[in-house]
Amino acid sequence: MVIVNWSGELDRIWPTLILSSAAAASGVQCKVFVTFWGLLPFVKDGVRVTGDGWMQKMLSIMQRPGIDHLKLSKMNFLGMGPWMMGTLRKQYQIASPRELLEACQALGVEFIPCQMSMDMFGLKREDLIDGMADPAGAATAIEIMTEANASLFI
Amino acid sequence: MVIVNWSGELDRIWPTLILSSAAAASGVQCKVFVTFWGLLPFVKDGVRVTGDGWMQKMLSIMQRPGIDHLKLSKMNFLGMGPWMMGTLRKQYQIASPRELLEACQALGVEFIPCQMSMDMFGLKREDLIDGMADPAGAATAIEIMTEANASLFI
Amino acid sequence: MVIVNWSGELDRIWPTLILSSAAAASGVQCKVFVTFWGLLPFVKDGVRVTGDGWMQKMLSIMQRPGIDHLKLSKMNFLGMGPWMMGTLRKQYQIASPRELLEACQALGVEFIPCQMSMDMFGLKREDLIDGMADPAGAATAIEIMTEANASLFI
Repeated sequence: MVIVNWSGELDRIWPTLILSSAAAASGVQCKVFVTFWGLLPFVKDGVRVTGDGWMQKMLSIMQRPGIDHLKLSKMNFLGMGPWMMGTLRKQYQIASPRELLEACQALGVEFIPCQMSMDMFGLKREDLIDGMADPAGAATAIEIMTEANASLFI
Repeated sequence: MVIVNWSGELDRIWPTLILSSAAAASGVQCKVFVTFWGLLPFVKDGVRVTGDGWMQKMLSIMQRPGIDHLKLSKMNFLGMGPWMMGTLRKQYQIASPRELLEACQALGVEFIPCQMSMDMFGLKREDLIDGMADPAGAATAIEIMTEANASLFI
Repeated sequence: MVIVNWSGELDRIWPTLILSSAAAASGVQCKVFVTFWGLLPFVKDGVRVTGDGWMQKMLSIMQRPGIDHLKLSKMNFLGMGPWMMGTLRKQYQIASPRELLEACQALGVEFIPCQMSMDMFGLKREDLIDGMADPAGAATAIEIMTEANASLFI
């Protein structure tokens, strides 16, 4: 199974991580191509401003990277929406994105960062979390998708 | 064919229902995994405020559930966008989401609600429309997707 | 490979065109079903106001069609976001949507406009760029998807 993880939002990274951990747990090999906004949750803790030029720096300031700083695609309300989601999540014992990401990595889900998006956002390999595969391009994405039983763009 | 119906917006529920009814009408078996915001259009008429705690109640008030109360993902303009879409739709004899949903159910499209999302939004089985399959989890979604010829995340 | 190109936004038309050109370049046949907002980038240069009634005209005014007038799904900031993306893109020698679209057409990617969406938006065949396939409906979308190795909804 292949997921193209394009979005960096809380309500979309959640299905990416839930589906890929569930796939891996059921013995289905799962690869996630991490591209565009989808790269931001994969930025290391503590890395705050990324890129070289002022444009890349400004993008990273306005769209704070890191798995603990995700916004909702709607009803974000300056963070109240994600806070409510987090509270409801805990109440129903649903794993957080961070916990799901750790589960995915433990279960062998392969996360492949998109080289082109890394260039555009000014992200270097060392800005991203450990354990990801080598950066690759669209040709790799095509190859793994045409070989997979199912592919999703999230 | 499998569709993961994640979004509850008018402009995304439309392709979900058009594609799944067209699939079923062409003799292609179609299953729809209904998750996250995508559950809201499947809430019964007349059910207005859902959930137990104040957070779930507040979410359901701000994001009104039900197939007749859908918003556009953009150009919503406090309801003017959806009203214009509805008027243009009638002018060109295109079916409404409600009509498409009824067609889907008559043609045997299977709608599977996501248990985890129901928990988070505080939706009970009786809050959802009749005729849906039993609630299931991510493992079921993985199973039906890897068996399908095509799968889409909408 | 099949892509349902539903969105007309810069950050989503980009993966559609990058993936379909990469597929075609790797010898993978690629068909793109162009529907809903996704039709707008395929409107010819110079076509500004489309449709017959005032509603269709108003929609085309508020959502300017054409491949050079795309917005971002977030951080648009009245055009500053897309301008920054365009500047970063050039700096890293990444192709523009217009260049990618031309590459796709040269490589034989088939773009199939959705008849129902054309009706709703008041788009006629001559409003769309040259070289697209004949308009088709959902049944065609289902047919090409169930025959494909991979299908994405972008």
